[in-house]
Parts: sequence; structure tokens; C-alpha cells
Amino acid sequence: MATARLTLGAGREEDRVARVALTWLVEPGNRAVHGLVDRYGAVGTLDALLAGEVPDAKLRSTVTARLRAGDPRRVAELALTRAARLGARIATPDDTEWPEQLADLMRLNGLGSDRRVDWDTRPPLCLWVRGAWPLAQVLGRSVAVVGARASTSYGNHVATELGYGLAEREWTVVSGGAYGIDAAAHRGALTSGGITVAVLACGVDRPYPMGNAALFERIANSGLLVSEWPPGTEPHRHRFLIRNRVIAALTSGTVMVEASARSGATSTLRRAAALKRPAMVVPGPVTSAMSVGCHDMLREIAGSRLVTGLAHVLDEVGRIGVDLAPPARGPVHVRDGLDQDSAQLLEAVPARRAVGAEEIAARAGMELRLALRKLALLTDLGLLRRVEGGGYALARRARGQGAAAPGRSAPDQG
Amino acid sequence: MATARLTLGAGREEDRVARVALTWLVEPGNRAVHGLVDRYGAVGTLDALLAGEVPDAKLRSTVTARLRAGDPRRVAELALTRAARLGARIATPDDTEWPEQLADLMRLNGLGSDRRVDWDTRPPLCLWVRGAWPLAQVLGRSVAVVGARASTSYGNHVATELGYGLAEREWTVVSGGAYGIDAAAHRGALTSGGITVAVLACGVDRPYPMGNAALFERIANSGLLVSEWPPGTEPHRHRFLIRNRVIAALTSGTVMVEASARSGATSTLRRAAALKRPAMVVPGPVTSAMSVGCHDMLREIAGSRLVTGLAHVLDEVGRIGVDLAPPARGPVHVRDGLDQDSAQLLEAVPARRAVGAEEIAARAGMELRLALRKLALLTDLGLLRRVEGGGYALARRARGQGAAAPGRSAPDQG
Repeated sequence: MATARLTLGAGREEDRVARVALTWLVEPGNRAVHGLVDRYGAVGTLDALLAGEVPDAKLRSTVTARLRAGDPRRVAELALTRAARLGARIATPDDTEWPEQLADLMRLNGLGSDRRVDWDTRPPLCLWVRGAWPLAQVLGRSVAVVGARASTSYGNHVATELGYGLAEREWTVVSGGAYGIDAAAHRGALTSGGITVAVLACGVDRPYPMGNAALFERIANSGLLVSEWPPGTEPHRHRFLIRNRVIAALTSGTVMVEASARSGATSTLRRAAALKRPAMVVPGPVTSAMSVGCHDMLREIAGSRLVTGLAHVLDEVGRIGVDLAPPARGPVHVRDGLDQDSAQLLEAVPARRAVGAEEIAARAGMELRLALRKLALLTDLGLLRRVEGGGYALARRARGQGAAAPGRSAPDQG
Repeated sequence: MATARLTLGAGREEDRVARVALTWLVEPGNRAVHGLVDRYGAVGTLDALLAGEVPDAKLRSTVTARLRAGDPRRVAELALTRAARLGARIATPDDTEWPEQLADLMRLNGLGSDRRVDWDTRPPLCLWVRGAWPLAQVLGRSVAVVGARASTSYGNHVATELGYGLAEREWTVVSGGAYGIDAAAHRGALTSGGITVAVLACGVDRPYPMGNAALFERIANSGLLVSEWPPGTEPHRHRFLIRNRVIAALTSGTVMVEASARSGATSTLRRAAALKRPAMVVPGPVTSAMSVGCHDMLREIAGSRLVTGLAHVLDEVGRIGVDLAPPARGPVHVRDGLDQDSAQLLEAVPARRAVGAEEIAARAGMELRLALRKLALLTDLGLLRRVEGGGYALARRARGQGAAAPGRSAPDQG
């Protein structure tokens, strides 16, 4: 490490180039590289790697192999030039727009059964960005909506509604760039005129999948396209997993809408849970293969939270007193508010004829004096009506709500 | 309490009459009454109540009012006569068939937010039963499947599959008698030839709702109809809540399939959870009003468990079977559990050919109408099969004697 130089001494541009070069040399999230950058800075680490002065043999051989494909600094400079032409920029931890919450990734120390995690847990060294908004500003209040590519119309509907509702409440929507749930969430947010961010597993100039090219353009115009990988990078399969930690770490919480049993979206959710961010799951029909992963997560991940819509999501990520969900309630009926005695008395009134107070009291097993008081209350509430001769009969209101026919009242008797 | 006599000194029949009378005087589950019965026996409690010698003023006035409607012992004796005519019997804690697990209801001390609970938590004083099986035998290994009346085809599908699967694995299915999920669960169990139990909030002779009358007959023939209330009792609305505690307490766990936001089924689930029995919930589309109650429960009830099908349910209730020693059971055959008429009829079916109902009835020396009912039962149990042209033949199950069912001793009542 004799040749390592401290970042402090290096120019900002040199640091950027080194971070891009490092990301190109070794896939992002790498613990060893991140550890070196922490101690020696990006420029120092790059120099050390180029000189083969790294104790970690695996890292050394990875670098050696990669060096056959080009000179990292040269590649990085070309990428920066290409990005500038595209209107893309690069952000590093030195920039004011850098989202500080990414540092939480330092807390991830493997996720139990998820054995693939050890190489992709560290924060990004840099982020490529297309779009006008500063990262930190739009991501300070953001929710990830993730899920299956092969989503059903049910999942698309839910994701679109969530995207729309979140964006309308000025929460930034964050997702990947895939078909299905990702695209539906973005479309919902765009429809409401809100901000949506696509975090890609390839260069921000690569419309992948091609079918979403127009969507990416719309996102770049009104929201952000973000990636750890330099422009031109291909969306290799393993990169989606690496990318998922960034989606989980950037946002205040992750909602999974539909997922098959082995969906990659579950990795985003696991990472959110590991980061102690709300890990939210939308259930679905147990008969749908596209909800199997959702139900698995709800059963497996301690602290995962079932959500059925925007209100629940805001409950989880919202600040106290703001954006809180009102409790879900069915239609309210007068009789639901009745005390036990009154309810019992009401039951004792026959469906189709008027009866005297004494008979009602006897049927209900109630003392006459108490019964008379409750009968007056029920009459006031419009559930009973007085009839000529002093008796009581069910008012239409009580009948309609099932007083004499529990089969038809609104709440289920189970 | 001067006139109170101990049950020990009273005859068994006198105790039964007193229990029925008490249930008629005060709605079942009442804490005060149960406390008195614990101390003074049913006969002593009834005498004390009739003599007005009870310190609890509310209880005293309830009884006073009810007494205007009739003499409790007379009412009880009429109910017992009526029940005998129906082929129904009464079971009390003195009977060997009494399900001991009902005693767990003593543990219920209110359920937090559920303010209506304090008056319906105590164990039943007696149970009315229609059907051949001894209660304890079939309920020792049972699961409640409950849910909405206004269920969707999705919920019906799930409940039917669960009922079928549970019964096929020799778990008794328990539910109410409502349309929707209740009926679907029973039908599933019946289809698989298993045992299903309907716990009613009215007399076991009251087909409520009427549209389920044929279903109740099938259940009475091959499973059990059970109620705390004497024959003839109306299904007043408050009785469903009182009944729900019995469903929760009789079973090893409760599964809720579909429920609206204010469904009564949620009360069964809450009681199951309060009893530390597995409280299981099947999720559904968040776009379905009939799953709102399910999702609410999964969010609200600590320890509630999301289940997507039979395997998960068996996982939850199976633990009980593993942790606790299973009740001693010898080799068990379906036919061992048959009532005498059915057994006789089965004998009358020739080994190797199909015969018509009339011929079977003649061979067995049985009235055709009774024979037809029992033939349906035997078919439901999988012992006979219908053949083309309307006759019956022995099913392999009846020939081989190999099929096991959760029964052991021959029930003595049909």
C-alpha cells in the first residue's frame, strides 16, 4: 500500500474517475473494495489494485482478469464523456445531492439464509443519474414499490394505485425498470404528475427492457433514472440482486405487490427488513402463483407487514400525525351502538306484529322497569315505533337491518 | 342460598333438567351463573335463582323477568321430550362425551377492545346434539373453518378445499350453519366422506337459514349438529357471538377464510387467539371487500397466522398433536362408528352386486324412508356407492374394512 494516496489530497474529478473505475473493475457493493476506499480513498484504492498490492487474493484475481478488458481510468473517462453527452451526471458521497441513507447499508452483515448477500451489501461508490432533481431531495421522502414482472392485472392495478396515491401525497415512488409491477408503479406516479425514480441494473442510457423505452424517457423527463453502473453497461442477471439493496436503502420503506415463489423482488424486501425499514407486502388470492412469494414473505420475515393499500403504507412510512390511515370500517348501523340490554330487547320484538312492553320484557328476560327505559331509547333511535294501544313494533329501520332476520344484516354473523 | 342442594345429591336427570332450565333462564356463557353452578351445582343454582336468593341484582332481575314467560323446569322437561322425539340428545360435563377443552373458556377474561365479551365467556352448561358421534371423540382432532356469509366464489373455493382436505386427513371440520364459508367448509368435508360439525346459534331442530336445511340433514346424518340452546330456540342476533366462543374452544385452531370489515367471524378468531389456539387467516385480493376483515385480523391480532391452504393449517394445528399425546385410539373403522340402523342396512347390501334401495330396506326389515336417509349417510361416509340406475353397491372402503375414521366406539344414539 506504499503508493496509496489519500482522497483528501486528490482532486474531486480524480476521485470521481477512480470511483467509476473501481465500479467497472469490481461489481459494486463489494466489501473488500469498500473497506479499502474507506481507509485509503478511491484514488488510493484504485492505484493499489492496479499495482496488485492487495492482500485479498480473490479480489486480486478478479481485478487481474478484468484488466485484460481495458484500462480502468480510460474506461471511466470515456464513460464520463458519454454520460455528459446524454445529459447524465455522476454523484458521489462528496456531492450535496448524495442520499445519506445509503450509509445504512454498512449495517447489513449478511441476511441469514440469503447466502448470496455477502458480496453486494456495501453502499455504492457512485451513482449515475438522468433527470433534473437532486437525489437527496426527492429520495428523502420515498417508497419503493416492487414486484413480479409477470404480474397479473390484479397486481398491476394495485401497483398503479399505490404509485398514483404515493406520488399524489408527494412521496417519491422508487422501483426498477422491469415490466409488470415496476412499470405499473411508475405509470401510476407519472399519471398523478408526481416524481418517480427507476433504479436500473444497467447503464442509464440502456432502455432495458426495450419495451419500456418510452417509459424511461418519461421518467427521465419528470423524475430520475439512477444506476451504479456506467452508461453502456449491460443488465447482467446478477446485477439485479446487487441493485436491489440500493432500492431498499434509498427509500423509507418497500412494498412488494406481487411475487412468485422465487421472485427477485423478495430480495429487495429482505434487504429493507434487514435495514429496519418497513417491509410491506400486499397479499393476494392464495390461488394465484403471483402472490405465493408475497405470502411466503409475510410468513417468513419477522416484522414484515401486511398492507392493503395506500393508507396502510402511509401508516408505516408516514411521520407521526401526518398521513395516518383511518381505521377501515364497514358501514355503521345504529344498532351496532346499542348496549347489550337494548340489543337483546330489540331481538325480542317479533318481526310482524306489535306486542306490549311486558311481553317483550318477558321474552328478553328483563325486568319491566329497565325494559321500559330501553324501549323508550329504541323508539327514540327510530328502531321501534309505538302503536295504538301502547305496544311496540319494529320500525322499518330495524327490520331492514335484520332485527328479525339476522341472515340479512350487513355484518357477518360468522 | 339456604335452599341450595348440592348436585352430588341430586340425580343425573335432575342435573340435566336444571342445566337446561338455567340456559333458558339466562343466556349461556353468563359468568355469574357459571360461578354459582361451580359452587352449588346446577340444581342448587336453579333453586336459588327461583327463590330469588342471589346477591347479584342484575342476575336476579333478569331471572325475575324471564320467569314471567314460564316455569324453567317445565320448559326444560318439554325441551328434553321434544329433543328425544327429534333424535337429539343432551350432553353435560358429567357425560363421557363432554369435550374437556371447553373448560379452557375459563381462561377468557375479556378480550381488550372487544367490549361485548364479558357476558359470554364461560363454558356451556350443556350441549344439545344431533348425530351419532360422541362429541369428545370427533372434536379431539378438529379445526374450525369460519368466514363470511356473503362470500365470493374465491372464498367458497378455498373453504371447500380446506374442508375437503381437513376431513380427508381425518380432522373434523367445525363451523356455523350460515351460507357462504360455513356451508362451503361443511360441503367440502361431506364430499370427502369425513366428519363435519355445525355449531348452531339456535335449536338443533331449527334449520336456520332455511336454505341450508338439506345441508343440516346431511350433517346430522354423518356428522353432528350442536347447540347450547334447547330445540325450538330462535337464532337471535346476539346468540351468534355467544356461540362463537364455543366454536373457538371446541377446536384445535380456527381458520378464517373471507370476512368483511365487521364480520362476526372475526369474533371467533379473536376468541381462538385469546384461548392460545392457532388463529389462522386466509388472505385474499386487497380489492375484495370480503377479505378486508381477514387482512384487518392479520394486522391487528398478534400471533395471528397467514395460511394459504391445507399444508399451512396442518402445520399450525399439527404442532398440538405433536406436543400433546394424542388420545388413545385402537384401530378405527368407519363402520365401527355407525348407528345400529345404518350398520344393519350395510349388512343387507350384498357383497358383489348392486341392489335398489327398496330391496335393501326389505332385507334389513326397515321402513323405506328411514332406509333412504341412512343409505345417503352410508354413501356420504364412502361405505356405499351409487350405481347407474339408482342402486347401491358396497364401496371398497366398506369391503376392505381398512379405512380409518376418527371414531372408535359405537355411538349409542342415532
